[in-house]
Amino acid sequence: MAQLYGNAIIGQSGGPTAAINATLSGVIRGCLACNGIDKIYGAVNGIEGVLERRLLLLNGTLRGEDDFRLLESTPAAALGSCRRKLPADTSGDNLMVYENLLDIFRDFNIRYFFYIGGNDSMDTVAKLSAFMQEVGYDMRVIGVPKTIDNDLVGTDHTPGFGSAAKFVAATMSEIMLDTAVYTVKAVTIVEIMGRGAGWLTAAAALPALSGEDAPDMVYLPESVFDYDDFFRDLEKAFHKHPNVVVAVSEGIRFKDGTYVGESGQSGATDAFGHKYLSGTAKVLENAIRERIGCKVRAVELNLPQRCAAHIASKTDLDEAVRIGRAAVDYAAAGETGKMVVFVREEGETYSVRIDCADIGDIANEVRSVPSEYINENGNGVTEACLRYLAPLILGEVSPVYENGIPKHFRFEKQSISQ
Amino acid sequence: MAQLYGNAIIGQSGGPTAAINATLSGVIRGCLACNGIDKIYGAVNGIEGVLERRLLLLNGTLRGEDDFRLLESTPAAALGSCRRKLPADTSGDNLMVYENLLDIFRDFNIRYFFYIGGNDSMDTVAKLSAFMQEVGYDMRVIGVPKTIDNDLVGTDHTPGFGSAAKFVAATMSEIMLDTAVYTVKAVTIVEIMGRGAGWLTAAAALPALSGEDAPDMVYLPESVFDYDDFFRDLEKAFHKHPNVVVAVSEGIRFKDGTYVGESGQSGATDAFGHKYLSGTAKVLENAIRERIGCKVRAVELNLPQRCAAHIASKTDLDEAVRIGRAAVDYAAAGETGKMVVFVREEGETYSVRIDCADIGDIANEVRSVPSEYINENGNGVTEACLRYLAPLILGEVSPVYENGIPKHFRFEKQSISQ
Repeated sequence: MAQLYGNAIIGQSGGPTAAINATLSGVIRGCLACNGIDKIYGAVNGIEGVLERRLLLLNGTLRGEDDFRLLESTPAAALGSCRRKLPADTSGDNLMVYENLLDIFRDFNIRYFFYIGGNDSMDTVAKLSAFMQEVGYDMRVIGVPKTIDNDLVGTDHTPGFGSAAKFVAATMSEIMLDTAVYTVKAVTIVEIMGRGAGWLTAAAALPALSGEDAPDMVYLPESVFDYDDFFRDLEKAFHKHPNVVVAVSEGIRFKDGTYVGESGQSGATDAFGHKYLSGTAKVLENAIRERIGCKVRAVELNLPQRCAAHIASKTDLDEAVRIGRAAVDYAAAGETGKMVVFVREEGETYSVRIDCADIGDIANEVRSVPSEYINENGNGVTEACLRYLAPLILGEVSPVYENGIPKHFRFEKQSISQ
Repeated sequence: MAQLYGNAIIGQSGGPTAAINATLSGVIRGCLACNGIDKIYGAVNGIEGVLERRLLLLNGTLRGEDDFRLLESTPAAALGSCRRKLPADTSGDNLMVYENLLDIFRDFNIRYFFYIGGNDSMDTVAKLSAFMQEVGYDMRVIGVPKTIDNDLVGTDHTPGFGSAAKFVAATMSEIMLDTAVYTVKAVTIVEIMGRGAGWLTAAAALPALSGEDAPDMVYLPESVFDYDDFFRDLEKAFHKHPNVVVAVSEGIRFKDGTYVGESGQSGATDAFGHKYLSGTAKVLENAIRERIGCKVRAVELNLPQRCAAHIASKTDLDEAVRIGRAAVDYAAAGETGKMVVFVREEGETYSVRIDCADIGDIANEVRSVPSEYINENGNGVTEACLRYLAPLILGEVSPVYENGIPKHFRFEKQSISQ
């Protein structure tokens, strides 16, 4: 394959994570080292920003290793993000969107396009690469995975998940201590993110590996939630101690498929048409207060799950940089319409290699927690699950603190070309 | 004053914090170094445990400096806690409670009593020391402050507050980045603990000191909350950027004195008769959705505020150990019915000395954020406030991590004497 010469765009899309900027750093490092790539543009607010020609020239914005490191330890999306999906086909007015993009790519001589995101963002990668191939515009489009949900198919895990899991595991361990101090009968319900897959909620069980207390029950969206089973589980737990702690995914559902959290929410949906969930723990809190009448508290871990970079997993951030660099290598080698993925190597010691997979098999699919990772009663995870999760949260980062809080990186956005 | 010989009880009471075990460690260190003190008992679940003779012999339970350090970095109350108040007087049946305590103290030859807690716990110190003096039982009763609320009078600040404030400031800084990634108009309401005083909520403004983004508005319980002002503030903030972030104390009230959170809650009260508040941010979320109709999210920082020991303030933990040791020194020197307090020294560099103050002036009082720390519009804090807060969150701890999460200390409670 002949070397393709031109400029690159990097975009970030979907929900923020603690590792998405580490991946951005990796892609920039890769682009700087790539002979075929001249200018590196950051898409401000993902594909939405590309469509509005809000491109930030990144060459020279990171002034040495310290800046790269600071970017890597900064949570959220330094380039801004979006939740915009490209049209499903190129019929009628939809074609204009794609032709507009083609014009922009031609104007800026864009030959490399890296999109860092989750399921919905991989849909953008699939459509973009398909259209460009169709019209014969030579551009390498590579997706780089990112999501705290860990629900992308084709990869062992996703960057951002390990850090979120470490936050969840550490925070659960602290909450276990906090809730154990009183002698009164009480239930604490901790609600964890993950609409369709229970990976992050499963991480709540990790303290058990270190001999620390872990939640009495863990409910994932992969198991049907049933009130009778739930209250039976609670009663059993009360026989062991007065302070019962339960971890629940925001996405747990009843047998009929309705979300537990729905009863406490309006029917609002997000930009992708997903039902906006919140308040699953609150719904359970009210149910317990009514049925048992004991002290009960709902704790939603909320935004810190995806942005608590101060307790990021070093394994996660290192891998995030690495997969970002690898995306550029694959693009330079001629790949397009692909997502870079982690493949876990066999053997006692944890290690991953990076491969790339067809985007068509990945976009819009959801990877659930498999049944062998969930216990028989559907109220906890198995040893195999903990073994899968454990290496992903290993290692601590050392953020730079200024005045007692972590320092963060910011791009100067004055120089956006339009 | 002649040396008083005998045994000591240490108890922890009220809500957990990230520093209360550091204070416990300090008191134990002090007791071990004190000639007058032989056996050191831990009251399991505070005064409630004393009444039930659940005393844990602490001598020998901490096997060297590593154990002390581990205890100091463990959140919550290692001895367990309670929310029990002693009867207001010694009339009728109430006398039995006090005589029961006297019997226990005699049986175990307790001559020193250290109680680590907040306002309500200082009430226990006041009553206990008064009764023992009345009946002529020579026992030194010293209160050691602890509360994330920072609302005890007579002390510059309270152990536990600095760590909670550091968590709030760091988390706010991360949430600011997280919420800034999209271009859609949105409000994020972050609810922070503090029923009667806004100290912890004020800490949400600390990122500004480091040039990081800080919330657009900060509402403390010390200012009257008014919906018209609030929506006017929001409109102004929207002129600056589409993502507005607001920090609110759980205890903000309307002009008529009712809590904003009350409209979303039942009239439930806690064991001390305080109204149980929760959902202030949720109430505001609904109000905004109704009036403005934009995207809005309520984030309750919840339990991690008081137990996120992994990001504790080193200044806070060091001072917590120091004030615990000082409590023993004051007791040995003959003080009783006192609380040890921090006095901030004059001068450019931050330093505190430890003094002790009459418990009668402290118990059941609340120290509010003074008006010179709140801006004119009642929607933010002043430079003077930030200068007061800044040194309290300085310094990072290095928890011992095992399998990716912080390791914690636990007392073996098998050896409880009864």
